[in-house]
Amino acid sequence: MKAGGWIPVLDRAAFCILTLSFVCLDVVALKSQLFTRFGGLPHSNNTPIIYETLYFDQKIDHFGFLEDGTFKQRYLVADKHWKPPGGPILFYTGNEGDITWFCNNTGFMWEIAEEFGAMLVFAEHRYYGESLPFGQESYSDSKHLNYLTSEQALADFAVLIQNLKSTLPGAQHSPVISVGGSYGGMLSAWFRMKYPHVVVGALASSAPIWQFPGMVPCGEFYKIVTQDFARSGHNCDANVRKSWNAINNVSSSASGLQWLSEEFSLCTPLKSPVDVIVFKGWLQETWVNLAMVDYPYEANFLQPLPPWPIQVVCKYLGFDSTVTDHQLLHGVSQAAKVYYNYTGSASCLNTSQTATGSLGLLGWFYQACTEMVMPMCTDGVQDMFEPEQWNFQAFSDECHAMFGVRPRADWAGTVYGGKDIASHSNIIFSNGGLDPWSAGGVTHNLTGPLVSIMIPDGAHHLDLRYSNDRDPPSVREARSLEVKYFKQWIKEAKKTP
Amino acid sequence: MKAGGWIPVLDRAAFCILTLSFVCLDVVALKSQLFTRFGGLPHSNNTPIIYETLYFDQKIDHFGFLEDGTFKQRYLVADKHWKPPGGPILFYTGNEGDITWFCNNTGFMWEIAEEFGAMLVFAEHRYYGESLPFGQESYSDSKHLNYLTSEQALADFAVLIQNLKSTLPGAQHSPVISVGGSYGGMLSAWFRMKYPHVVVGALASSAPIWQFPGMVPCGEFYKIVTQDFARSGHNCDANVRKSWNAINNVSSSASGLQWLSEEFSLCTPLKSPVDVIVFKGWLQETWVNLAMVDYPYEANFLQPLPPWPIQVVCKYLGFDSTVTDHQLLHGVSQAAKVYYNYTGSASCLNTSQTATGSLGLLGWFYQACTEMVMPMCTDGVQDMFEPEQWNFQAFSDECHAMFGVRPRADWAGTVYGGKDIASHSNIIFSNGGLDPWSAGGVTHNLTGPLVSIMIPDGAHHLDLRYSNDRDPPSVREARSLEVKYFKQWIKEAKKTP
Repeated sequence: MKAGGWIPVLDRAAFCILTLSFVCLDVVALKSQLFTRFGGLPHSNNTPIIYETLYFDQKIDHFGFLEDGTFKQRYLVADKHWKPPGGPILFYTGNEGDITWFCNNTGFMWEIAEEFGAMLVFAEHRYYGESLPFGQESYSDSKHLNYLTSEQALADFAVLIQNLKSTLPGAQHSPVISVGGSYGGMLSAWFRMKYPHVVVGALASSAPIWQFPGMVPCGEFYKIVTQDFARSGHNCDANVRKSWNAINNVSSSASGLQWLSEEFSLCTPLKSPVDVIVFKGWLQETWVNLAMVDYPYEANFLQPLPPWPIQVVCKYLGFDSTVTDHQLLHGVSQAAKVYYNYTGSASCLNTSQTATGSLGLLGWFYQACTEMVMPMCTDGVQDMFEPEQWNFQAFSDECHAMFGVRPRADWAGTVYGGKDIASHSNIIFSNGGLDPWSAGGVTHNLTGPLVSIMIPDGAHHLDLRYSNDRDPPSVREARSLEVKYFKQWIKEAKKTP
Repeated sequence: MKAGGWIPVLDRAAFCILTLSFVCLDVVALKSQLFTRFGGLPHSNNTPIIYETLYFDQKIDHFGFLEDGTFKQRYLVADKHWKPPGGPILFYTGNEGDITWFCNNTGFMWEIAEEFGAMLVFAEHRYYGESLPFGQESYSDSKHLNYLTSEQALADFAVLIQNLKSTLPGAQHSPVISVGGSYGGMLSAWFRMKYPHVVVGALASSAPIWQFPGMVPCGEFYKIVTQDFARSGHNCDANVRKSWNAINNVSSSASGLQWLSEEFSLCTPLKSPVDVIVFKGWLQETWVNLAMVDYPYEANFLQPLPPWPIQVVCKYLGFDSTVTDHQLLHGVSQAAKVYYNYTGSASCLNTSQTATGSLGLLGWFYQACTEMVMPMCTDGVQDMFEPEQWNFQAFSDECHAMFGVRPRADWAGTVYGGKDIASHSNIIFSNGGLDPWSAGGVTHNLTGPLVSIMIPDGAHHLDLRYSNDRDPPSVREARSLEVKYFKQWIKEAKKTP
């Protein structure tokens, strides 16, 4: 891929690896239906999750009047603790996937509902989960995909909230706070920016609103992944950096391919150079995933994993410089199996999993190919990956081939303000120091009413998860600060006539 | 119309009378190409208007990616006084018409350019003037009209400004202030609300951002028209109120119709009850127009008119209660001719002029039929017009018949915040006490950074016009306050890194 341009068969994998890791993973993980497994995990204060599933008739197109049809937007409501009239509404701005999954992975909202006398609402993002504007035709072509944009999603949220407030007795004067993580966090921040009359404030957790062209260096993301490995074990990053050449060396012979396939217990043995490129992409994504979910306790966000999983991974990657390629790659395979087979139930590992289609995955591909242009690059020096430049033109050509649309590199900056957001208010940007997505996040305070909270020991939106006995003090402080700001916003809102 | 529902042949006239007066007039007036006549009028400080006409390639659809075509957006640039680097840009957010007309009727910007070392930019609104997304096909059907929305127009402005700042040497750090009047004023305010990273502040002159369903009583607009007449001459409003019955009485016979036609020097004699309805609508609109342009000096905004034209009109409407129908209507005809024939050059009066199509007029019909739903009503008691209720369903049915689209009554409120705009900043809402559009304007202060300026003796966006020796002190104060705020915003912007 580096040497010879773009190879069509790899389009999706390349996409995923370069720009979409957090989303690819979300979607892949969605398939495992974490909801059902969640209760079995050792959370210290596992508030029960009980909600009503409802559907709202949304306009397919908020920004044009020719298409006047509607679709059923799914949303979940939990009002057990709600105190009408005027009790606040905590509103989750759904990401690129099934809303029940986000609902079940946002324990923070469930844990604070009672204290706030709050209603919880989780709104599904159009084109994901059950909220399909054209049913099974929604992804059939670019014409049907035309209404999959963040602006339409924000308008859905605004219309839904206005409707809830005007129809639910006691909700008319309820202050609404939006909450979201990852892409949902970006939406939450943008929602406050664009609809400050609808939400009094927003918590944008691990929201890379600056991961757009010209805003942050494209290499920061992978640098953070690398730092996570560097701090988690002796020589850990250096050995990952070495592993790519080792793979190239070993895979140059048929017997080497066979050895690699067996060593990694691959479901489908490697046969060709293209397979090897896919294999390396899959490994790269594995390390990224681990950086995202490097939580201090046993958890099952993307995969079932031990506490501080990178430390466990690095136990297999502590070689000094005299290691042979085969020794090194044995270590790498053991490391990968920490991620893919912690429970011991995987009979083999599937390197094509990030390339398999799912509605959610395809939806995010489309979003990345239109508005959500997030440059990523590696240099192999400041990071532990093979060098890969960001190539917008090639990316655009792929998008055109796949969807018949071309990305607009500057649009997100124009519509959402890029780095010039100081005139907004009441947004908390929380970021984890371990989370590679913090590279594109707001990690310093901008103005009084825009708050940045850093969680040095936190991975991807750790603060939104259920509290846990092994939570580091930084995330406890973050959550209590978030609660403090929520209270302040609600108080301010109630003062306004 | 009142008694028997909607008469198809009157659709457009009814539209215009009920909801769109300021726009209808703008468009009608556009046809007279005021630009060429402007120089001949006695303005005290008539700063010469010299600009370059340029065109920018805008995306036809900013909110979807299927339609990737572009069109040429016209914009006018005057940089004679601009002081780069960093000199400010005053940006006129074009209304529903030819931008050169707005350019020539916004003397305020021309007069302050030198003091601010400012560049002036006047951007044409898509679908008006020369800025037609699909050329001559732009109005051919609702499919081509689909991109005529305020959101698309605001996105045009944002993209254009971002482009100017990134391509014009010395403009990169230029603070931009948006300026607009009437619908252009609404756009100016909304532009600051939605794109505060693009404009540091906005002057929204005579901008009825609250003339939407549920925000202000529908009768306020016509009450203000009535008040203008009441204060401009003895019994003036009372005689207008009486005139409708007089018309009904006189027009009940063929000879009466002929008398009316001759008395009013109508180009096309009245023949039928429908003609009489059109005639009354035309008169009603005439009184509204006069209220909008009741300026203290001779001016030619919609028509060439004397100073304080309503006072001149009211000289013909000062009858006491014993007046006969014919006497009263003779007075009304003299009054109407003040508006239509001040220069003495009109050979006859044309009652169908508001119903004639023009691109601009049709465009605003479409906007009123989609987003810009502005309820209006009369009761004949608090105002001087025949009673007419606001009937959304009938309005919607007309829109559907005309364009195949239905208005969304709540959308403008949802997307722009309605009355809940206190979280925004740096917007001046100026309103004239004589201007009926002040009924839907922001006429009281909301928060520190949102400023309302009332100009009690001002008609429609008087403050945006050239200064004049006969300007009332209130408009002089308004302009100097506006200048003061502009300076403050620019200073604040320059402090920000």
